[in-house]
Amino acid sequence: MLTKINHIGVAVKSIDEALPFYRDQLGMAFKGSEEVLEQKVKVAMLQVGESKIELLEPTSPESPVAKFLEKNGPGIHHLAYEVADIVAAIAHLKKEGARMIDETPRNGAHGTLIAFVHPKSSNGVLTELCQAGH
Amino acid sequence: MLTKINHIGVAVKSIDEALPFYRDQLGMAFKGSEEVLEQKVKVAMLQVGESKIELLEPTSPESPVAKFLEKNGPGIHHLAYEVADIVAAIAHLKKEGARMIDETPRNGAHGTLIAFVHPKSSNGVLTELCQAGH
Repeated sequence: MLTKINHIGVAVKSIDEALPFYRDQLGMAFKGSEEVLEQKVKVAMLQVGESKIELLEPTSPESPVAKFLEKNGPGIHHLAYEVADIVAAIAHLKKEGARMIDETPRNGAHGTLIAFVHPKSSNGVLTELCQAGH
Repeated sequence: MLTKINHIGVAVKSIDEALPFYRDQLGMAFKGSEEVLEQKVKVAMLQVGESKIELLEPTSPESPVAKFLEKNGPGIHHLAYEVADIVAAIAHLKKEGARMIDETPRNGAHGTLIAFVHPKSSNGVLTELCQAGH
């Protein structure tokens, strides 16, 4: 059902301060950055194997990532798995007893479809499903 | 330098309780479990794409994972990247200004060589390098 880890979202106070560790010290390929207005974050993407690291910097104190940083400090924010068919994946999770935050997929960046699993089901790991855009 | 995400270590109170989410609800292939005496943990491994999820359950209150759970609750404990040559990778990180916990590699499970980056350098994400065993 899952094809790979699509990305790991890492909450940082400052992309400028965190980027050298991933790009220069670990040597990952920097794939660009963008602002996601809906989540009030700036995102920098780095490639490692078939997966990406996404550095998430809040652009407003109301950003969910700002609240995460306030509570936990910088660290891993969420884990996103890629699926070929997100509607089928949600149906499978529910059939097996999982609770979803998003019972129907919603639009993510770059034409992706995304859905979050409810934290009650995922043992403290914020878990996202994502289906690639066309 | 990094070839892929080797595994993501997830601290859980009970593998028996957490396993159904990863194996049955997300549908990952369960690759077995083992006890790592040195770290006082039981580890269950699940495959997703080229990477693994490792569920870590402490077997003693003195386990580093027990202390992590006490402070943070269940969640992602560390992120491990695979490298072809761990000695060269450590040298590169140091040349670029990173601090290492392990300046020389030590033995991990299954004949692997591992080294941890110092938390001061990795922005709140406990980061491991690992070189596959022969």
